[in-house]
Amino acid sequence: MEEIIGKRVDLLDKGWIELVDMMPHPANSVSGDMAIVNAARVSFLGESKGEERDKKLLFYLMKHRHTSPFEMVEFKFRVRAPLVTWWQWARHRVWNFNAQSGRYTPFEENDFYVPDVWRRQAKDNKQASEGTVTDAENRVLTDALIEHYENSFTLYQRALDSGVSREQARLFLPGFSVYYTWVVKVDAHNLMHFLKLRMASDAQYEIRVYAEAIYKHFFKPALPWTAEAFEQFILAV
Amino acid sequence: MEEIIGKRVDLLDKGWIELVDMMPHPANSVSGDMAIVNAARVSFLGESKGEERDKKLLFYLMKHRHTSPFEMVEFKFRVRAPLVTWWQWARHRVWNFNAQSGRYTPFEENDFYVPDVWRRQAKDNKQASEGTVTDAENRVLTDALIEHYENSFTLYQRALDSGVSREQARLFLPGFSVYYTWVVKVDAHNLMHFLKLRMASDAQYEIRVYAEAIYKHFFKPALPWTAEAFEQFILAV
Amino acid sequence: MEEIIGKRVDLLDKGWIELVDMMPHPANSVSGDMAIVNAARVSFLGESKGEERDKKLLFYLMKHRHTSPFEMVEFKFRVRAPLVTWWQWARHRVWNFNAQSGRYTPFEENDFYVPDVWRRQAKDNKQASEGTVTDAENRVLTDALIEHYENSFTLYQRALDSGVSREQARLFLPGFSVYYTWVVKVDAHNLMHFLKLRMASDAQYEIRVYAEAIYKHFFKPALPWTAEAFEQFILAV
Amino acid sequence: MEEIIGKRVDLLDKGWIELVDMMPHPANSVSGDMAIVNAARVSFLGESKGEERDKKLLFYLMKHRHTSPFEMVEFKFRVRAPLVTWWQWARHRVWNFNAQSGRYTPFEENDFYVPDVWRRQAKDNKQASEGTVTDAENRVLTDALIEHYENSFTLYQRALDSGVSREQARLFLPGFSVYYTWVVKVDAHNLMHFLKLRMASDAQYEIRVYAEAIYKHFFKPALPWTAEAFEQFILAV
Repeated sequence: MEEIIGKRVDLLDKGWIELVDMMPHPANSVSGDMAIVNAARVSFLGESKGEERDKKLLFYLMKHRHTSPFEMVEFKFRVRAPLVTWWQWARHRVWNFNAQSGRYTPFEENDFYVPDVWRRQAKDNKQASEGTVTDAENRVLTDALIEHYENSFTLYQRALDSGVSREQARLFLPGFSVYYTWVVKVDAHNLMHFLKLRMASDAQYEIRVYAEAIYKHFFKPALPWTAEAFEQFILAV
Repeated sequence: MEEIIGKRVDLLDKGWIELVDMMPHPANSVSGDMAIVNAARVSFLGESKGEERDKKLLFYLMKHRHTSPFEMVEFKFRVRAPLVTWWQWARHRVWNFNAQSGRYTPFEENDFYVPDVWRRQAKDNKQASEGTVTDAENRVLTDALIEHYENSFTLYQRALDSGVSREQARLFLPGFSVYYTWVVKVDAHNLMHFLKLRMASDAQYEIRVYAEAIYKHFFKPALPWTAEAFEQFILAV
Repeated sequence: MEEIIGKRVDLLDKGWIELVDMMPHPANSVSGDMAIVNAARVSFLGESKGEERDKKLLFYLMKHRHTSPFEMVEFKFRVRAPLVTWWQWARHRVWNFNAQSGRYTPFEENDFYVPDVWRRQAKDNKQASEGTVTDAENRVLTDALIEHYENSFTLYQRALDSGVSREQARLFLPGFSVYYTWVVKVDAHNLMHFLKLRMASDAQYEIRVYAEAIYKHFFKPALPWTAEAFEQFILAV
Repeated sequence: MEEIIGKRVDLLDKGWIELVDMMPHPANSVSGDMAIVNAARVSFLGESKGEERDKKLLFYLMKHRHTSPFEMVEFKFRVRAPLVTWWQWARHRVWNFNAQSGRYTPFEENDFYVPDVWRRQAKDNKQASEGTVTDAENRVLTDALIEHYENSFTLYQRALDSGVSREQARLFLPGFSVYYTWVVKVDAHNLMHFLKLRMASDAQYEIRVYAEAIYKHFFKPALPWTAEAFEQFILAV
């Protein structure tokens, strides 16, 4: 299981997510699920009583929303994602964030998100999308976007060249598309809250793919019992 | 003093900040400073002992970083600011935020920030600006920016017209410039932390003007003793 | 409605809870429920559309767990409760607390909680109580408790008289019974989380009476729509 | 360095603290100090540039209060301490806590804190102690305390035997002395805040020994650069 540390999953056209570290570390003799069970057992000074009862206790905790033991497990990721993704991610205020600074580091020509397909505005949900435009429309929109990115970047570069500060030159950039790399950290309880919201069908695609990658490639392998209980008691509700 | 509730201060070219509410409400017989003193006095079950000693206690609290009484006062603002400002503001995770949604509400032609002057990249601080470009350069840059905004908005509008979802069409927009309206709330202790960082000379201008407006128009009139102690023990350090 | 500010409700044998302040203040033209609706409406820059649709929006927010608008309303209480109550209350980490200090203020002879009735250990729930002991047992236990309090306080007082520090002399006290006065503050969202857990039938009686008093005397009169939605979508689940 | 995981340090008469886990795990190739440096470097997408410059960057972060990189390191402890210690510890609301439950688990005869020496009330600081009582007074007080504990425990046990619930029987106990075992978790930034306050000379002895043990046995060996910078820029101020 240890190989999930350092594993990188590519997402969108130029993004990725990588598990930097985890507590407990997978090389540890105590699994993540057992770290949760052990934290819960302190409330009655109990000891492990075999796998079956340990798992049963974990399911009990999830079912009855005893959330504090799940806070005892931590995940740390390194993530490259466009601002439109971070704009929503940063609203989850319990995460710890270290963010690339656009005031410090100039952006490069290739740092902009180009979607594969263009999704149509949803009819019933004013806040979501559904379906896609035709292939022909898709080509037109994507060509227009790429050309627009080139023009924008040229203007940004020209402003920088004339001595304008990076913090201000970025006004020329297509800000929602700009890729940023962040280091982010969160405990398992708050990660599940994030996953519940951002894996939902009405979450924006550009953040949903990150949530799904976290769940599939990292959360589930690292915490198999917790994932099973999460699906049963939280996701299915 | 009551008239600070509802007062609106214009900022940047199209932004503003307005104090929606405060606890204690200025119409209250207990001032904000006294609400802080009263909260502190619960630790020794004390009563007010006249203005002079009340003020002295408040200064003692600030000097020795007894922060919890300052958390007992709340400010709620309604703010219109460009994304480049929110991008930094949202990192202050103790604030409560309700944000305008770009997935729900389409942006309008006039929703983009145009700076008065273009600041030069600082020589010593890789993350800041200092001085401005020449008047001639300024005109060229501003003209280019406005034209770029028009082109961007046309592309955004065209994408919307062809049925593309709002959440995705915004990739065409100059994202850092887009004005958003948020309702934000924070207690006086965490507001001071924000003010200390964002009124500093190396804070980006586009957030510094908001911090300075909060301090001058709302914080200082609402909490005169606290402001005096803040300047003496926190800002001056 | 304004008279809830300053209202005090007596609880247990020597405790009470008092609403010190609220945002929005009841004297305000905007009700608490409308402050929530207004915060939510910023997401689509909407305006009030009459009472019926405002209330419908609030119910929608509660049903779909859009919690951030409920964070825009604040309650501040002054509370006198025994340590056994605070011991559980203090675990709700989002509250702001200013606490009476037992290191600073000596306790007095009459500062100890004496229960009306003695509850029996629950058979099925290892963590709860159910039913009460007989009247005869009750008298014996209460007499023993009062005598024990007197002995404890005498020892505490003797330690203080011989110069022992207050922070250490309290080792002689029946710590779980000691009454403390705190000032506490919380937003409506986190208050509902507290109420859900502490009004539950398996919550300890000594904190449940405080939760119930908050709900009945303050929360419900201050936020009638929110209370109705809370009962329907949260409490009933 | 790895042997700090699982190391237990005895404190007071019956307490202890043990490092359960840490992120990064000491077996990891990346040290804790470097995990902090690496998180900071994401802001400018930088790479390690040798030990000297890495350490210099860490000192810069501490000096200028760039706190978020220090949040990327986590410590998890298992701690046995009397309630008088937890009563203060629990006020640090950013920690994650899993606590032994006195409603669930009965206390045992030997679960009460007996101090070595009795400290005198401080003359100048109403909230602190200074010096100790005479040896003769010490013996008298300790004998009285032990006898009082025995009486209290007998009454507690008698209440339990007559069927009274554990949650209520504990009213007979010397609550401040009762030992509880908790699992606690915190990041390095918030741990330093705790250490600054609780290692201070005016902190109560019963929590100061825990803070000092954390610093000496775990924090300093795990994060030598951070500890050095902490002493220079935070503790010395």
